[in-house]
Amino acid sequence: MPHILDGKKIAQNLKDQLKIEIENIKIKSKRVPGLAVIQIGNIAASSVYVKAKTKAAKEVGIDVIDHHLAESTNQNDLINLINQLNNNDDVNGILVQLPLPKTINEDLVLNSILPEKDADGFHPLNVGKLSISQKNDENLMIPCTPYGCLLLLRELNINLAGKNAVVIGRSNIVGKPMAQLLLKESCTVTTVHSKTQNIESICRNADILVAAIGKPEFVNRDWVKEGAIIIDVGINRIKVNDAKSKLVGDVMFDEVKDKCHAITPVPGGVGPMTIACLLRNTTIAFKKIKNLNRI
Amino acid sequence: MPHILDGKKIAQNLKDQLKIEIENIKIKSKRVPGLAVIQIGNIAASSVYVKAKTKAAKEVGIDVIDHHLAESTNQNDLINLINQLNNNDDVNGILVQLPLPKTINEDLVLNSILPEKDADGFHPLNVGKLSISQKNDENLMIPCTPYGCLLLLRELNINLAGKNAVVIGRSNIVGKPMAQLLLKESCTVTTVHSKTQNIESICRNADILVAAIGKPEFVNRDWVKEGAIIIDVGINRIKVNDAKSKLVGDVMFDEVKDKCHAITPVPGGVGPMTIACLLRNTTIAFKKIKNLNRI
Repeated sequence: MPHILDGKKIAQNLKDQLKIEIENIKIKSKRVPGLAVIQIGNIAASSVYVKAKTKAAKEVGIDVIDHHLAESTNQNDLINLINQLNNNDDVNGILVQLPLPKTINEDLVLNSILPEKDADGFHPLNVGKLSISQKNDENLMIPCTPYGCLLLLRELNINLAGKNAVVIGRSNIVGKPMAQLLLKESCTVTTVHSKTQNIESICRNADILVAAIGKPEFVNRDWVKEGAIIIDVGINRIKVNDAKSKLVGDVMFDEVKDKCHAITPVPGGVGPMTIACLLRNTTIAFKKIKNLNRI
Repeated sequence: MPHILDGKKIAQNLKDQLKIEIENIKIKSKRVPGLAVIQIGNIAASSVYVKAKTKAAKEVGIDVIDHHLAESTNQNDLINLINQLNNNDDVNGILVQLPLPKTINEDLVLNSILPEKDADGFHPLNVGKLSISQKNDENLMIPCTPYGCLLLLRELNINLAGKNAVVIGRSNIVGKPMAQLLLKESCTVTTVHSKTQNIESICRNADILVAAIGKPEFVNRDWVKEGAIIIDVGINRIKVNDAKSKLVGDVMFDEVKDKCHAITPVPGGVGPMTIACLLRNTTIAFKKIKNLNRI
């Protein structure tokens, strides 16, 4: 039987730790970390994510400052708001929920967030630090989804060094930082993508396969090595029939699972880890600014 | 017969272009780009590199400001010097020749260089921008050696998209940025290193093999796919006998070359490209600060 990596439970453990840490921080400094969450417009998926992030932050004792702006918000107003939050001592982390309306330059907005408050780890300075650093250490602001994937892998208590890891997808949010993290764990890392030839045979050699391509059930049984570890980052909604839809990952879970050593389900795998890692980044940002030692 | 990629000639072409560009810049702005070169101590290899870089810069019309400091220079004095150069409008590029004495924190020093003047492309902000950007465009400050390797590949006029690229080595100076560059050319990219298992068989699948591991003649004929393109970043001095030594790459050139579509020699392959790309970065930095359009 494969290990089904229970992201919900593992994220809860991380949140429980953070909760205790924040309680101690509060005793020590009379303050708690603050997270500003900016959402523009009313994309349904964004609203779901923002709600889940806000709820989780409050659970662990992080103050949430909500900024829900109209779809018509222009770029300057958004950057002005970010500048205000950059200068606000009560705000330790700033999260801009993506995607933004097409009239707004996403890079410009993300670059305007103070790197020290960059809860998502998307600022180029943090991206560069992640690439350069020799270890995946706890003081880096690491993009939440790939870091969540790494924490899931660590739950298995296996030596990652020398493992053959294949990352499907090369986005700035998941694929590229995931490859960096795995490389620092001394995996042999291959990144495959839409232009890759023989993608199946490359995946079939993977001891660790991270699917982050956003295509429903893209990876089937033939792509998977016996005994592999599968991390499924995809969250795709597909129609079951005219009335019903369901969430599926980038991997055909049911037909793949018996072939694996371990696999993450969708939902309940990577998703909850992403949120927990956002709270981790916010707490790290607070401790850095307040110069608190780890308690 | 394989293509022997003549780095000396290709670098000369790039320098000739830069020379014309700098002449035009001079006419337009009455100024030329300035490069500050800092060397600490007298490591023989460093002196050779600094001399070659200085000579090449002068050839294309870049002003070189030389700072050769004593081995005993302390970290604060070095950072003070960098701060002065950061504020000096005549300096567009700052190069700190590595390695530094062990008493000096290399990261701290490199991070103190203004990203806009970071001629080596090692500052975390530039590393992050390289990772994030969708294209290997001409305004990025890209680490010189990997960018030189990419320019050599482009000389072959082949479509890189979908090619299976393997990078041996994961240094911040070569391996990691090389992987980023190849990924943006839409290669399928694998990074292998000292912890990799089955390194030979992975290399044998490479359409493009970049060896940057610093081990003399590490890659032999069995590791190479028929028709592969080999870029050899290694520059290793080995003893021939008690009286003589010679430079060799990370690849056994003589026994590998007949199996390849193309290969770089050592010396005369990647080395000259590294220097030419340093001059390119300095010129880009000048144009950005002066806000000159490409002439």
